[in-house]
Amino acid sequence: MGNLLIQYYSQTGRTQQMAELVAEGAARVDGIDLRLKTVGDSTFDDLFWMDGIALGAPTHLGSIPWELKKFWDEAVSTVWGKIDGKFGCAFSLAGGLGGGPELTCLGLLTILMNYGIMAFGVTDYVAPLRTLHYGAALPGAPRTQDEKDICIRLGQRLAEFVSYYVDGVESNHPNKVTYKRFV
Amino acid sequence: MGNLLIQYYSQTGRTQQMAELVAEGAARVDGIDLRLKTVGDSTFDDLFWMDGIALGAPTHLGSIPWELKKFWDEAVSTVWGKIDGKFGCAFSLAGGLGGGPELTCLGLLTILMNYGIMAFGVTDYVAPLRTLHYGAALPGAPRTQDEKDICIRLGQRLAEFVSYYVDGVESNHPNKVTYKRFV
Amino acid sequence: MGNLLIQYYSQTGRTQQMAELVAEGAARVDGIDLRLKTVGDSTFDDLFWMDGIALGAPTHLGSIPWELKKFWDEAVSTVWGKIDGKFGCAFSLAGGLGGGPELTCLGLLTILMNYGIMAFGVTDYVAPLRTLHYGAALPGAPRTQDEKDICIRLGQRLAEFVSYYVDGVESNHPNKVTYKRFV
Amino acid sequence: MGNLLIQYYSQTGRTQQMAELVAEGAARVDGIDLRLKTVGDSTFDDLFWMDGIALGAPTHLGSIPWELKKFWDEAVSTVWGKIDGKFGCAFSLAGGLGGGPELTCLGLLTILMNYGIMAFGVTDYVAPLRTLHYGAALPGAPRTQDEKDICIRLGQRLAEFVSYYVDGVESNHPNKVTYKRFV
Repeated sequence: MGNLLIQYYSQTGRTQQMAELVAEGAARVDGIDLRLKTVGDSTFDDLFWMDGIALGAPTHLGSIPWELKKFWDEAVSTVWGKIDGKFGCAFSLAGGLGGGPELTCLGLLTILMNYGIMAFGVTDYVAPLRTLHYGAALPGAPRTQDEKDICIRLGQRLAEFVSYYVDGVESNHPNKVTYKRFV
Repeated sequence: MGNLLIQYYSQTGRTQQMAELVAEGAARVDGIDLRLKTVGDSTFDDLFWMDGIALGAPTHLGSIPWELKKFWDEAVSTVWGKIDGKFGCAFSLAGGLGGGPELTCLGLLTILMNYGIMAFGVTDYVAPLRTLHYGAALPGAPRTQDEKDICIRLGQRLAEFVSYYVDGVESNHPNKVTYKRFV
Repeated sequence: MGNLLIQYYSQTGRTQQMAELVAEGAARVDGIDLRLKTVGDSTFDDLFWMDGIALGAPTHLGSIPWELKKFWDEAVSTVWGKIDGKFGCAFSLAGGLGGGPELTCLGLLTILMNYGIMAFGVTDYVAPLRTLHYGAALPGAPRTQDEKDICIRLGQRLAEFVSYYVDGVESNHPNKVTYKRFV
Repeated sequence: MGNLLIQYYSQTGRTQQMAELVAEGAARVDGIDLRLKTVGDSTFDDLFWMDGIALGAPTHLGSIPWELKKFWDEAVSTVWGKIDGKFGCAFSLAGGLGGGPELTCLGLLTILMNYGIMAFGVTDYVAPLRTLHYGAALPGAPRTQDEKDICIRLGQRLAEFVSYYVDGVESNHPNKVTYKRFV
């Protein structure tokens, strides 16, 4: 069983909505064990346990809120250097279009890379003009079905990668799983 | 007179639309001399001439298209080190929401900073949930009035900064020019 | 008088060393009023007071330590939208070469840009192969004279920009102040 | 056999030196088939062939030289969407300390992520104060043994990841391969 951690920080419940949709997507893949946790409920043990992680937070000033960064800064002495080679992706929402969610996703991926984690975005378009190339980066809470699908697809892709690379499930090979593209 | 250069690369005409809207915004400020140019028509002399620049390109792979980068790479031997302290901002559109226009804006701002140019985004919201914190970063061509206003505001702000800092027009001081905010 | 704030977070005293060198550089420019403060001692009033800011922190996980981010996240409700158009730059050190100080500088500049501040790097080389294009980004504490000069030059350039743009001191125009370059 | 592509652009031969060291590191891992190519000699077929890629270029203006970007921009119509889930890392050198090689590495990783490739840095320190958290990011040509080791380690790590994840060689599991750390 591949182990997936969806860890997030949410102030207003909107990032939590995203996290739950990511979880919904991950649950579509067989053989995945899932933990959905706020950063407050999460422990360093979750980081050792997981094979893949989706890390999410609202965009504060075009980057990561201090509340989430605190967890990862403090995890260094216990965890850093011991979780290399796992898989990770990011999700974020902002206060509006152009408010920085892509930059926050890149910031989250940078942290994951610092920990030696393989960071990825997703090439898929879930609808015309709706993609997640650097993670799920939304202008606000996921409202439309398209925006929800962006989050769902992120979780599903993470689960597929873990399923293939960790559990060796051939049918989940990235080249074998194909989605309708709408580029 | 403050000199403003709006330089852009456009393949399909969509970035050109953005550039024209940026020019429309800049023209709202008195005493601005404006050049609106494709990167192909632009010369190194434009870079010496301008006091402020808005630099725009479509998002290709989450970053700057090679056609625009070529101009700036080749300008180094003639221009670099001689235009420090001017003012600059960025605009970009992508193939869809989440496609990377914020990352491209940051990439464009990074080039400007390398040249010693003061890089800025704009705090204003032009409508609820519509901002330009790192430049005008649109998911596609500017279609709605909100999206057009994002481009217009970028040009206007650049012109105001240049008007105040270069020409000393007190009424355009950043703290004196106020817009309705919709945060 | 131009007002300069050098705000930093330091755990081990090494970033403080950088901050003091930045202050030394700023003090080389006449007519600058200087505040050198840890983020803990700094108040929101400092942000209203300053015309220019040098913002510094160690690199934690390739980005900003939570302790510094907390200050800026919490400043939003009081300060954001009211300090647009000021000038800012960044400094950071890491745990080693390749450890992320440039990424942290870019992260700090991103925060400043979110606040509407003009963000800049410095084109100067202070010695052969020693520059500060995105701020002072050192692999560790400033040890050699070259590394100290990088910090000093950052403060000096910030002070010159403020002197010219805020106080109108013509001799500090970016194009009039020239340094030996060693590209 | 895992297939590794080391693709680079070099103007002066210095990035080529880095590329050759990355290849030297990759060759330390058994069962790896290696292609070391300039971007000019490289074909789109190389991208289909490879399981892992190390992508390298000098830093031009804090980002990717247009000559390398051109290849990847032009590869989109043939390759994009068909190489998801492969593994990739980056290397770059600049004109000096603080000149932007980390930013270029992040830019290269961003391109790889756009293509759906798993992007990673390396937690290892190859010597005290010498690391490669976002790829091999050097202030200039690799001169000292430490700097050479940074490049070598990058290639070795890439080869180990490919060996483990693609070929299933258990002894190359990221947690089983341990190096002396010097944090």
